[in-house]
Amino acid sequence: MKWARFFKDGRIHVAEVTAEGLRDEAGVLHAEEAIDTFLPPVVPGKIIGLALNYADHAAELGLAFPAEPVLFLKPPSSLIGHKAPVVYPDGATYMHYENELAVVIGRTGRKIRRAEAFDYVLGYTIANDVTVRDFVNNFYRPPVRAKGHDTFGPLGPYLVTKDEIDDPHALAVRTYVNGELRQEGNTRDFLFKIDEIIEFVSSFMTLEPYDVILTGTPKGISPVEPGDVMRLEIEGLGALENPIVDGRTKGGTDG
Amino acid sequence: MKWARFFKDGRIHVAEVTAEGLRDEAGVLHAEEAIDTFLPPVVPGKIIGLALNYADHAAELGLAFPAEPVLFLKPPSSLIGHKAPVVYPDGATYMHYENELAVVIGRTGRKIRRAEAFDYVLGYTIANDVTVRDFVNNFYRPPVRAKGHDTFGPLGPYLVTKDEIDDPHALAVRTYVNGELRQEGNTRDFLFKIDEIIEFVSSFMTLEPYDVILTGTPKGISPVEPGDVMRLEIEGLGALENPIVDGRTKGGTDG
Repeated sequence: MKWARFFKDGRIHVAEVTAEGLRDEAGVLHAEEAIDTFLPPVVPGKIIGLALNYADHAAELGLAFPAEPVLFLKPPSSLIGHKAPVVYPDGATYMHYENELAVVIGRTGRKIRRAEAFDYVLGYTIANDVTVRDFVNNFYRPPVRAKGHDTFGPLGPYLVTKDEIDDPHALAVRTYVNGELRQEGNTRDFLFKIDEIIEFVSSFMTLEPYDVILTGTPKGISPVEPGDVMRLEIEGLGALENPIVDGRTKGGTDG
Repeated sequence: MKWARFFKDGRIHVAEVTAEGLRDEAGVLHAEEAIDTFLPPVVPGKIIGLALNYADHAAELGLAFPAEPVLFLKPPSSLIGHKAPVVYPDGATYMHYENELAVVIGRTGRKIRRAEAFDYVLGYTIANDVTVRDFVNNFYRPPVRAKGHDTFGPLGPYLVTKDEIDDPHALAVRTYVNGELRQEGNTRDFLFKIDEIIEFVSSFMTLEPYDVILTGTPKGISPVEPGDVMRLEIEGLGALENPIVDGRTKGGTDG
């Protein structure tokens, strides 16, 4: 099944996505076009990102292939839903999208063996791991500023349970900016497969229900600006669309 | 007031720490010595660490002073309470404690001005930002493996509300290993004060109730081994004590 979370009529709904529309807990149908405020389809306790997981993207950044998954954490406060605006912050001159297959965990697990890894997967959704490259050049440590800003974590539009996806390692990934195709890849080109990643992460961190693992982005990142609309598609998961608004208060544009 | 969370008689208790003992929600008194399982005093949505915030510790590591707070995120799954064991993992040859004043947030805030920063503070506790130095040498990115392991986040023993602390920038910090004094400092030597850190962090990440900010550690880190007991004291906040157990499965000691 597919489910969506959204805010309407003063409260949060969790609804099944059907051909007729979004059917909420009370059985009421909502037309998708009538929903203004999508929420992230799950509320994760932690969001684990892979810095490099496609050979072509590593090459694009001029970086060698990592010997083991290169992890970072994204704060839950960065999450927004489908259609919500991403805010372009002060100090940014190069913001880009990263279209990533997001794996949603369904069961608590630690030291999970690769062969059982998919037993711990609830399903999939699309993540936009928005990044401001200007803030990456931190000599000492993690790019919390680069990836952790409020609104830098669009997630959705739906949670798609794993039974609906035949092979998560054969999904086309496409990103459009204002309708123009900018990024194209396929999850078959992962350096580390989903089961390997789960084995590695859970070897030292307990995975909990609704935790999210971002599996990296393929080649094709490019700068985006206030006013642009990012549309991220992954085969079988729908399209996650978010506009960029200007949040700059000093200099920058007039906005 | 001071509060503690602990597990006893099949459930979680939240209790006020009084001279007579720990008084739970039902008014029942528990002797502190009778409690086996302390829990972290709060359940944070995110844990924000400062990599370097004491000049003497930066010097000890041979690193220059940062121009702005150097942040990393620690996963909530790493948290444990007072007295719970820290697990020494495979691959480690240099694990160390980091005694840190932990600031607990009490109100949702974003873009908080320095002058109002303490309005957003609920109180303080002690954090042990356990780190395995072997895992820090990641050329690309954050040391999630170095600091994010299960059990690498002892927090406690109590939450002490801010009214009980006259000046959080004048607290003695002392760490003992097996009774021997190994680390000594004072929060007056912070490079970035608590109100500056809150202003900086909230300039791009919304702070939420029970979020925790770790304010860095002073000079005096040293290796610890399975069998050692770490005791972290901060003036007015009590003592956070955790033993280290051997979790190695390959080589290492016989454990």
